Amino acid sequence: MREVTLGLVQMSCGPTRKKNLEKAIKGIEDCAGRGAQIIALPELFLAPYFCQGKDPKKFELTETIPCPTTETLGKLAEKLKVTLIVSIFEKTTDTKPHFFNSTIALGPDGKILGKYRKIHIPSQPPDLYAEDFYFESGDLGFPVFETPLAKISALICYDQWFPEAARLSAKNGAEIIFYPTAIGWDPRLSDEINKAELEAWQTIQRSHSIANNIFIAAVNRTGKEDNLDFWGTSFVSDPYGRVLAKAGNDKAENLVVKCDLDLIAYMRKEWPFLDERRIRYDHLPS
Amino acid sequence: MREVTLGLVQMSCGPTRKKNLEKAIKGIEDCAGRGAQIIALPELFLAPYFCQGKDPKKFELTETIPCPTTETLGKLAEKLKVTLIVSIFEKTTDTKPHFFNSTIALGPDGKILGKYRKIHIPSQPPDLYAEDFYFESGDLGFPVFETPLAKISALICYDQWFPEAARLSAKNGAEIIFYPTAIGWDPRLSDEINKAELEAWQTIQRSHSIANNIFIAAVNRTGKEDNLDFWGTSFVSDPYGRVLAKAGNDKAENLVVKCDLDLIAYMRKEWPFLDERRIRYDHLPS
Repeated sequence: MREVTLGLVQMSCGPTRKKNLEKAIKGIEDCAGRGAQIIALPELFLAPYFCQGKDPKKFELTETIPCPTTETLGKLAEKLKVTLIVSIFEKTTDTKPHFFNSTIALGPDGKILGKYRKIHIPSQPPDLYAEDFYFESGDLGFPVFETPLAKISALICYDQWFPEAARLSAKNGAEIIFYPTAIGWDPRLSDEINKAELEAWQTIQRSHSIANNIFIAAVNRTGKEDNLDFWGTSFVSDPYGRVLAKAGNDKAENLVVKCDLDLIAYMRKEWPFLDERRIRYDHLPS
Repeated sequence: MREVTLGLVQMSCGPTRKKNLEKAIKGIEDCAGRGAQIIALPELFLAPYFCQGKDPKKFELTETIPCPTTETLGKLAEKLKVTLIVSIFEKTTDTKPHFFNSTIALGPDGKILGKYRKIHIPSQPPDLYAEDFYFESGDLGFPVFETPLAKISALICYDQWFPEAARLSAKNGAEIIFYPTAIGWDPRLSDEINKAELEAWQTIQRSHSIANNIFIAAVNRTGKEDNLDFWGTSFVSDPYGRVLAKAGNDKAENLVVKCDLDLIAYMRKEWPFLDERRIRYDHLPS
């Protein structure tokens, strides 16, 4: 049996970068101690979710890669012998720099395994998710990172609503797609709508598991920040879209989840959706 | 408010074509009597599901369009002033004919509104869904039918597992996608797997509602036939992926469901997934 154990660090993110990093490290250590081999952090975990508005000062949060964060966490990955999925507000080293919402995979040797730059950038509603002020759409396509245990992709938050992104990642070989995320309820909406939104968020990601015969791991932040009440509910789903484990919505929680990767090959014979799709869009986004 | 009422005729299909047609007519009349304006029948409702094997004799079931079935049901549509979605095993009129698994939309004037030919043709498992023996992949793309009340598409069964098919239909303007279906449990599998399959079937279709901000109406057959126990569970979901109504799994049942089409425009402002997708595959399948 080809098995891999995932760790999802669901956490809240306060104003102090150092404290957020310490929290993340604690979460990673807890997951690793419980057997996790690939461990993911939420989107932009080093700061409050600054996209609830357009503030030029927030560009001070950027890092060029490699950066102090990837160095610190690279050493941790090496020490714990795990793969880490880390979200970074990236500034390129170009003379006129570009800015991306990126994930970096750090391998168990402590080195950078690969990088993804978020392709789907939300702009709505402008007082909640004004990401277009900060980030360009990614220019790296949908890369797959070959960890020692599984081929993975690490897409980001809004990407999770687009079946195309999951499809291209799976077509490129991903067996597990991680979605570091920052999504929450808008307290101005009714309970009924907020319930529907959370359910829709789970349904669309579970559907990517089904359509592509793969595992999905969504890792979200929690806690209230201005107009957003981040809904946690980090989860892992299998190729049937079954939820293998799910966190609560209102507090920090580390999920450790075993995945039987043999199920992917089994499902690709039973339900060969990836092979039998008739519409192919293997070009990269322009 | 722009509202439309859908009718879904969930039925079992026996060996006698005439009786199946009578059953379908009764179901349509019941739905229309309860206010339904667009009414759909299950896939290949005129016969037992003959794709559990490869039998050349079954090509006797084919019809060239227009055919007695579209004539009879066209008159009914006109009488009841409804739109009907009708599944036909189609034989073309070419000298060397082609064979398709097709849906015909009949308008409230009794005339043919449009036609779709199933694009995704299952071949697995060969003793359950050997459709590749009977049908070519459709050559009409993903057309949209303009009914007096809504723009609709009528994809077919296996298409429901492919996000691309729903996406192209929505991109072409579909506000509601119907899925006439013949899917069931394989009694040789465990209860646990069969439960997972039914749940996956609902999840993937609900996800098309979410990804495209549209309504989905899946209409399945019921009853045991050879190795398949057709699981019914016909349902309608809204742009949040919420199930508005759902039939049982073991008997005939007509669902009549009101849909508020204004929700589509609302969702396209709130969650503009259709506009903000970055990967576009607007070419038709080869």
